[in-house]
Amino acid sequence: MTSLVLKPCCFFFLILFVSQHYSVSATKKSLDPRNPCKRFVLYYHDILFGGNDVANATSAATTNAIGLGNSYLGMLVIFDDPMTKDQHLLSPPVARAQGFYFYHMKTTYNAWFAYTLIFNSSDHKGTLNIMGADMIMEKTRDLSVVGGTGDFFMARGIATLETMTLEGFKYFRLKMDIKLYECY
Amino acid sequence: MTSLVLKPCCFFFLILFVSQHYSVSATKKSLDPRNPCKRFVLYYHDILFGGNDVANATSAATTNAIGLGNSYLGMLVIFDDPMTKDQHLLSPPVARAQGFYFYHMKTTYNAWFAYTLIFNSSDHKGTLNIMGADMIMEKTRDLSVVGGTGDFFMARGIATLETMTLEGFKYFRLKMDIKLYECY
Amino acid sequence: MTSLVLKPCCFFFLILFVSQHYSVSATKKSLDPRNPCKRFVLYYHDILFGGNDVANATSAATTNAIGLGNSYLGMLVIFDDPMTKDQHLLSPPVARAQGFYFYHMKTTYNAWFAYTLIFNSSDHKGTLNIMGADMIMEKTRDLSVVGGTGDFFMARGIATLETMTLEGFKYFRLKMDIKLYECY
Repeated sequence: MTSLVLKPCCFFFLILFVSQHYSVSATKKSLDPRNPCKRFVLYYHDILFGGNDVANATSAATTNAIGLGNSYLGMLVIFDDPMTKDQHLLSPPVARAQGFYFYHMKTTYNAWFAYTLIFNSSDHKGTLNIMGADMIMEKTRDLSVVGGTGDFFMARGIATLETMTLEGFKYFRLKMDIKLYECY
Repeated sequence: MTSLVLKPCCFFFLILFVSQHYSVSATKKSLDPRNPCKRFVLYYHDILFGGNDVANATSAATTNAIGLGNSYLGMLVIFDDPMTKDQHLLSPPVARAQGFYFYHMKTTYNAWFAYTLIFNSSDHKGTLNIMGADMIMEKTRDLSVVGGTGDFFMARGIATLETMTLEGFKYFRLKMDIKLYECY
Repeated sequence: MTSLVLKPCCFFFLILFVSQHYSVSATKKSLDPRNPCKRFVLYYHDILFGGNDVANATSAATTNAIGLGNSYLGMLVIFDDPMTKDQHLLSPPVARAQGFYFYHMKTTYNAWFAYTLIFNSSDHKGTLNIMGADMIMEKTRDLSVVGGTGDFFMARGIATLETMTLEGFKYFRLKMDIKLYECY
């Protein structure tokens, strides 16, 4: 008889616990940074248009550096760059990176990026949208993957950038380690 | 008596099940792309400033095409465009779209967008922030709704764009099918 | 005996309830706008480069106003601005704001922002990525925190901006009330 009286109370407690657990979850979730639900490494190649290399160029400055400090501050570059699975510029691209970056610091070469990775192959169809600061002088730096479409529907995550080659800002190659923590 | 011994064990199992269920949810959730929590279709009208149509123009190029390839590559356009419920430019706007786009491809007319939809009516007050690639030559293309404020507090989703009219890039009209999958 | 028959059924009901509760949570969660999981107020200082104040300037226009209407429409400004804990420009910065804004309205002074807050102190290491419309003439306006890295891994939230000082668009100071609703 006692047990029959206690049980509904226990259930109530459990339901309360679950609801509470849930409502906490909305504000404070535990994701493991080492454990993404999807991950892939791609290489980004940027060849800045220099005046007469139309065929090779993959990006172009639409505004020039303004001469404030001795970095490229003020230069805004629009790109449509190939993304390859290995480091070679001439490997078949598995995606395109389309967007822009600009240099924004007086004292060093820092850039700010916003771009879309566009996948259109038998492996993946869809896009990932990425933005953040590229502190060029640090070995690696993290940008935010803020959304996705198609195969990457509603995804979120982190894109870790690392400079592999930097040839006088005319050609540079970045390793992009894309880690998604929200997959659907 | 047996039942009394078994019950705590059952509860434990259930709690474990629930916790596990929850921690999976943080990395791998199942959202149905056909079933948004909020959806609405609006039409975007962009009238590019041509030099002497100040009153009608809703957007303006701040940088010009740089002559790389024969598309508009390099042209960056800043806009404050009306959004209407039907296709008519002169219908009362229900929101404004404020942001920018630029053309970034050598070979075709591709654009990249980042903008805010601003609602300030009796129906809705708040904003939606959107970014992504606009592959103009495809029938429809998906951008990411990366955040929202006010009535759209913390929202995320997909904005599907479709070109309705394109008059020499001086006037274009896009259908924007806004589907929110995270509502609060 | 009755109790033994009823219990499995109860459990089933409970599990169903929990699953349902969860799957609803993926599309419709209840977050309390007044109850962020992390919150801090910082002050943003922007000193626009005027031609010969290289040492003090923290931002620079890369495109000029185009003369459409009588606002600054078309001016795109790239910044690397100090963020301080109190209102004083000369207080030690606790973060940098790196990104851009542009003016986009014919009739009034409205801007659109996208930027990264970079923290690199003993208190915080990491970044927050923010975008949205800054309707300057309103007392407060909300932008979206669309992602974070480091200590702010995968964060989302709202940044409420308020103009504290506006000296002819050459120096302005904003209060930024950063409220995170998704913390990990």
